[in-house]
Amino acid sequence: MYDGVIQDLIDELGQLPGIGPKSAQRIAFHLLDADPEDVRRFAATLLEVKAKVHFCSTCGNVTVDTECRVCADPRRDLSVICVVEESKDVVAIERTREFRGRYHVLGGAISPIAGIGPDQLRIKELLQRLQDGVVTEVIIATDPNLEGEATATYLIRMLTPLGLRVSKLASGLPVGGDLEYADELTLGRAFEGRTTIGNAITRA
Amino acid sequence: MYDGVIQDLIDELGQLPGIGPKSAQRIAFHLLDADPEDVRRFAATLLEVKAKVHFCSTCGNVTVDTECRVCADPRRDLSVICVVEESKDVVAIERTREFRGRYHVLGGAISPIAGIGPDQLRIKELLQRLQDGVVTEVIIATDPNLEGEATATYLIRMLTPLGLRVSKLASGLPVGGDLEYADELTLGRAFEGRTTIGNAITRA
Repeated sequence: MYDGVIQDLIDELGQLPGIGPKSAQRIAFHLLDADPEDVRRFAATLLEVKAKVHFCSTCGNVTVDTECRVCADPRRDLSVICVVEESKDVVAIERTREFRGRYHVLGGAISPIAGIGPDQLRIKELLQRLQDGVVTEVIIATDPNLEGEATATYLIRMLTPLGLRVSKLASGLPVGGDLEYADELTLGRAFEGRTTIGNAITRA
Repeated sequence: MYDGVIQDLIDELGQLPGIGPKSAQRIAFHLLDADPEDVRRFAATLLEVKAKVHFCSTCGNVTVDTECRVCADPRRDLSVICVVEESKDVVAIERTREFRGRYHVLGGAISPIAGIGPDQLRIKELLQRLQDGVVTEVIIATDPNLEGEATATYLIRMLTPLGLRVSKLASGLPVGGDLEYADELTLGRAFEGRTTIGNAITRA
């Protein structure tokens, strides 16, 4: 459609997740118009990321150092590990400022359809981290979908015999949502996991 | 949020048009997972595009040669020029396979809000192309929005004194659409520009 290298760029952009042909074209023309210095910096960042970024030797989070920022932070609570699927989940949880322990990034979730079994995930590494007896609680924070739930079930079965406290993130109504728009599974979970506030009625 | 260069990449991606922070993060992690060779090729394409692509000396379309493919094609009709805003409009019109003339890319549209006046567009170059008397028709194919219409009005005022045939793309109902969902402006234009099919009723 376009002259050689312009079409190449549109094709490359179109292979990125969530970018369709129209967006790829729009981005390509944006880059054609952009300052050459900006595009050079963008290209350099791409190469730098591939050269520098690897996985934290402890938790499997992405990092540019040997250990990630969380693992390298001496103020973090060593007795709690939160197990997540991906590095972006670490960032999501860090944003809540609720958790002061460390993480373990599995690198995905069990998915028979995609051919991902427990052996493809960093579960062996997790079990190794639990051997020194420092960790007393494991919080499982996999995604609340089919694959995440399967992974959580697998992990719970592996971890409970070790005598640790194993917990799972609460399922329920999203804050700021409308009851009316909650799907029945979420609403069902919210009922199951309901918290008792008081017992004024039974007392009466 | 993320370690240095990962956040840099997310920031760079987030500056592309139509890519929000969530998409930027998703694309960044896609690139982190991607084959290093693929990312190298992507970075090389970015640099190559900036190094090789420039504007066609005749029509202003993007090209890697001195002249674009349309202008260099000896089979194109030299007597008709279709004026468009951007290079992507050339591709859109080429896709219809309806037009056999050549193009003139203005490089934008008149937009007082964005500070773009006629002098910022390739209008001088268009007038120069019309001087040799080869061109007998100019088709104005600017976008059917406020800026495009303003540009069309300006061009019509400039070109009609030159004794050329000046035409404008038809406005009307989009093919495949529903009358019910057409906005009133489009429907109004479709009425204005209605084509007479026969005159059976007046004959009766």
